[in-house]
Amino acid sequence: MSTIHADIIGRIVSDLHSVASAPKQGNEGAPDAWLEVLPEYVGGLEGIVAGDSLMILTWLHEAKRDILTVHPRGDPNVPMMGVFATRAPHRPNPIGLHRVQVLSVQQDRIRIAPIEAINGTPVVDIKILLPTDG
Amino acid sequence: MSTIHADIIGRIVSDLHSVASAPKQGNEGAPDAWLEVLPEYVGGLEGIVAGDSLMILTWLHEAKRDILTVHPRGDPNVPMMGVFATRAPHRPNPIGLHRVQVLSVQQDRIRIAPIEAINGTPVVDIKILLPTDG
Repeated sequence: MSTIHADIIGRIVSDLHSVASAPKQGNEGAPDAWLEVLPEYVGGLEGIVAGDSLMILTWLHEAKRDILTVHPRGDPNVPMMGVFATRAPHRPNPIGLHRVQVLSVQQDRIRIAPIEAINGTPVVDIKILLPTDG
Repeated sequence: MSTIHADIIGRIVSDLHSVASAPKQGNEGAPDAWLEVLPEYVGGLEGIVAGDSLMILTWLHEAKRDILTVHPRGDPNVPMMGVFATRAPHRPNPIGLHRVQVLSVQQDRIRIAPIEAINGTPVVDIKILLPTDG
């Protein structure tokens, strides 16, 4: 096995429509957004309530996957580094990691903030935050 | 697109050989382990040094993917909850999230701790930890 098949469980519905207009990190002015969960996965939301802290794992579908070194934060004055030593979206598997607060919960979607992922970004996992996460 | 194809970038080499013997979380007595990176991805490690804090993303290959509700921590006394409200390994996409320290770095592998993933667990991403992660 050298390839893994992950299923999209939902999508981000956001007013952010382009990577160019999105902050690099959630705490850099990112907006609220909906996380819409596909019908077959809604049961997995049971127990999530407003006020919870979550880690949202997305698939940054516009990222480049054939890049192994970058200037961190796109700053040409910073020496090139391996992508695994950065948070660049460009990397072999562009999984986005977003720490968010739950603002409200509806049947098949949750309102979350802050999240810099653009509209339509696939979601692959949702995890409750543990104290040891930070 | 409803399925995502992720590439395995490396594997955990650990003395832990079964899920039954592994702690549930890294901070519950998990050991050191090697993270061996496949040759084609070694360039992505550039800049990682001993003392760094990383988030390791694994694919928990022994987890069940058809489960949407669990007793948190496997405790039957705790009411069933949706997997997205827990850290159960069982979930539609069993991506493990491991916050570790780097103990040492060699050409194609890094020594990390603590990590509860068992020997052979596929690794799908490595990210430097940001202050906002915790």
